[in-house]
Amino acid sequence: MNCRTAIIISIGDELLIGQVIDTNSAVIAQQLSGAGISVLKKYTIKDEAPEISNALDEAIPEADLVIMTGGLGPTNDDVTKATLNAYFKGSLKRDETVFQHVVAFFKKRNRPMLVVNEAQADVPDVAQVLFNRLGTAPGMLFEKNNTWVVSLPGVPREMQTIMLEELMPRLLAARTGNQVIHHEHILLFGRGESYVAADIKDIEDSLPAHISLAYLPHYGLLKLRLSGKGTNIAQLQSEMGVYADMIHQRELDFVFARKESTLERTVVELLQENRLTIASAESCTGGMVASRITDIPGASAVFMGTVVSYDNNIKHRILGVKNETLEQEGAVSAACVIQMAQSVRDMMQTDIAVAISGILGPSGGTPTKPVGLVFFSVSSKYQTEVFDLNFPYDRAINKEMVVNTALNLVRKHIQAFFL
Amino acid sequence: MNCRTAIIISIGDELLIGQVIDTNSAVIAQQLSGAGISVLKKYTIKDEAPEISNALDEAIPEADLVIMTGGLGPTNDDVTKATLNAYFKGSLKRDETVFQHVVAFFKKRNRPMLVVNEAQADVPDVAQVLFNRLGTAPGMLFEKNNTWVVSLPGVPREMQTIMLEELMPRLLAARTGNQVIHHEHILLFGRGESYVAADIKDIEDSLPAHISLAYLPHYGLLKLRLSGKGTNIAQLQSEMGVYADMIHQRELDFVFARKESTLERTVVELLQENRLTIASAESCTGGMVASRITDIPGASAVFMGTVVSYDNNIKHRILGVKNETLEQEGAVSAACVIQMAQSVRDMMQTDIAVAISGILGPSGGTPTKPVGLVFFSVSSKYQTEVFDLNFPYDRAINKEMVVNTALNLVRKHIQAFFL
Repeated sequence: MNCRTAIIISIGDELLIGQVIDTNSAVIAQQLSGAGISVLKKYTIKDEAPEISNALDEAIPEADLVIMTGGLGPTNDDVTKATLNAYFKGSLKRDETVFQHVVAFFKKRNRPMLVVNEAQADVPDVAQVLFNRLGTAPGMLFEKNNTWVVSLPGVPREMQTIMLEELMPRLLAARTGNQVIHHEHILLFGRGESYVAADIKDIEDSLPAHISLAYLPHYGLLKLRLSGKGTNIAQLQSEMGVYADMIHQRELDFVFARKESTLERTVVELLQENRLTIASAESCTGGMVASRITDIPGASAVFMGTVVSYDNNIKHRILGVKNETLEQEGAVSAACVIQMAQSVRDMMQTDIAVAISGILGPSGGTPTKPVGLVFFSVSSKYQTEVFDLNFPYDRAINKEMVVNTALNLVRKHIQAFFL
Repeated sequence: MNCRTAIIISIGDELLIGQVIDTNSAVIAQQLSGAGISVLKKYTIKDEAPEISNALDEAIPEADLVIMTGGLGPTNDDVTKATLNAYFKGSLKRDETVFQHVVAFFKKRNRPMLVVNEAQADVPDVAQVLFNRLGTAPGMLFEKNNTWVVSLPGVPREMQTIMLEELMPRLLAARTGNQVIHHEHILLFGRGESYVAADIKDIEDSLPAHISLAYLPHYGLLKLRLSGKGTNIAQLQSEMGVYADMIHQRELDFVFARKESTLERTVVELLQENRLTIASAESCTGGMVASRITDIPGASAVFMGTVVSYDNNIKHRILGVKNETLEQEGAVSAACVIQMAQSVRDMMQTDIAVAISGILGPSGGTPTKPVGLVFFSVSSKYQTEVFDLNFPYDRAINKEMVVNTALNLVRKHIQAFFL
């Protein structure tokens, strides 16, 4: 089985009423795409036997690999295993390795084992077991007309681990062909999709047929992704690198990364490389800048701490913002964020501090200070900068955009003053 | 057109290589589901003309409504509009209202208007325009064989606004039938799916055919959703309420809400109702408890602020954790979180404070303090509680679970001491 193409089938009523967002299929697609396997399409279907069978009937003739996820939990709303067993004309047999694992799983957690959990060790005899070391529902691998059909549990970390440890090695071992896929990324902040498209139209028009360009906007970030196909990875990388460099040069003021990354990762890496430390003072973002920075493993070397001063009294008492500033100019003002940034930098004894105060909405605006107005300050021994911007979206989107803007201002401050 | 069933088609290569998670289709599904329209399935396909046409060929005979999202941006990787125009045998005509809107859109932002933006005002003459007041790509409504085919832009807030303001009113106006769908929710924290399934097996087995139960686990939360169909909404609600109450009673210790909610919303509502205030002192969670609390509009009435003391020096200097505690017991200890909670409660002058210190991983563990060990303290004038738990997952999942656990401990503290 030389796997070039795949179809992903996500199973679950919760996905069809929109109660759960399907992150699993994105994770699967990333892994397959990284291995040069092209995902042709995705289906999301109900947890019902005829839906599952129909989807398999459609998908198996079209792709080398069909991955199903979801519908393998212990409870009654899961019918996937029985349906697959019938579809592939198997019969359920207790798998002893899986059974011992399930027993040990419950023993380790000091929890009683239930009949429904025992039944998780029953596997169709026509399937290979894909061992689930993190959970109790095993993955399964079937084959029909030279297409592999894989069923994975819906719990994200279990699905991901089976994918990585059990399925990908089998796929790579079975591989005989040599088509490769390569991606190049140019990550920008602060320039809209259509402007970038106009800026680089000549470059885009000159791309050969085997290289394509996609625009992926996300809360003020714009990811440009070049995707190329070829047979020689070194040659493809070098060819695509030239185009990526041309785009990078054209958008120099806005590019913050040339790899799959985030603003918080870029900031943490810049701080680490230059042995700098940072703190934040946050009002409207409620600690989200700190939370995003500390999402990066190793942030403890560069991030000291934060004061979230949501209440004005806290801005005054803990951060020493002057009462006259709060009374005359208000908490959403240049003077207030400057004091917040300088004060938290002193307090936390860091090289850099960032402060944010604004009105995210839906209410809280005034004629002079509308909803969406946000002040930022970035302070270091070199300079204390202040910025104000208006964000026109809803509370949740404004918050994401404000956090991204704050991280980008920190990045630019480091690059302007410390490099 | 009496709309009972729908199919959602998400368009975009970025979805198929897993670079973007498809939240749009979940939002659409929620809105349709709330209006009693059953989503039969979802497709995710490439941004290519034959894929789009094939998906329409499949979907139109199966459903009353087909909603496509994505593929309407101004850049070259979007072919949706041209494909729809050809599919429905229309020709592109400039829509004057849309054109004036696009002109005004760029004028307001002081940005130059590009040719690609002008072209966004060109709409197939066989389509109704669904006005996009937040962006430049209009939504479009086509009809074929009594099925409505709707194309929406991929930018989430634009898609959502058109859906709410333009499409849903048209769907409801066209409605003549009377089938209703109702959902009841029982939200639990801290009890696994299979235990709940065993606890309530008799109730689940007694559900009539028109009521179904789904289990939706999410970072330690378990959402139980009863879904029912009927013709009389009052009768359906009362019938389903009885089952929901039975399940609620059976899991009394774990239930935190009986509506679509979150732990942070539950905590903010409890604080508001009882006129209480809260602060947090966070180490490993990096401000995420504060960020989650302030996601709730109106949190400013109850949430004062936070100290994120990521570095030990900050724990000592700002929060007054004793050096001997940090040296002898370490930052991940009962003594440390108790001092953090009491200190931040004093500092912020709140009724309640919660403190968290732990090791989220991937590294940082020791033989006596393994990765995943987290201490929590909740402090009020009545009592300062301390808890320790082990979280066995990866850094990102551990963080979500720890934040949920902290919010749940606050909820239980309020209910135990303040009600």
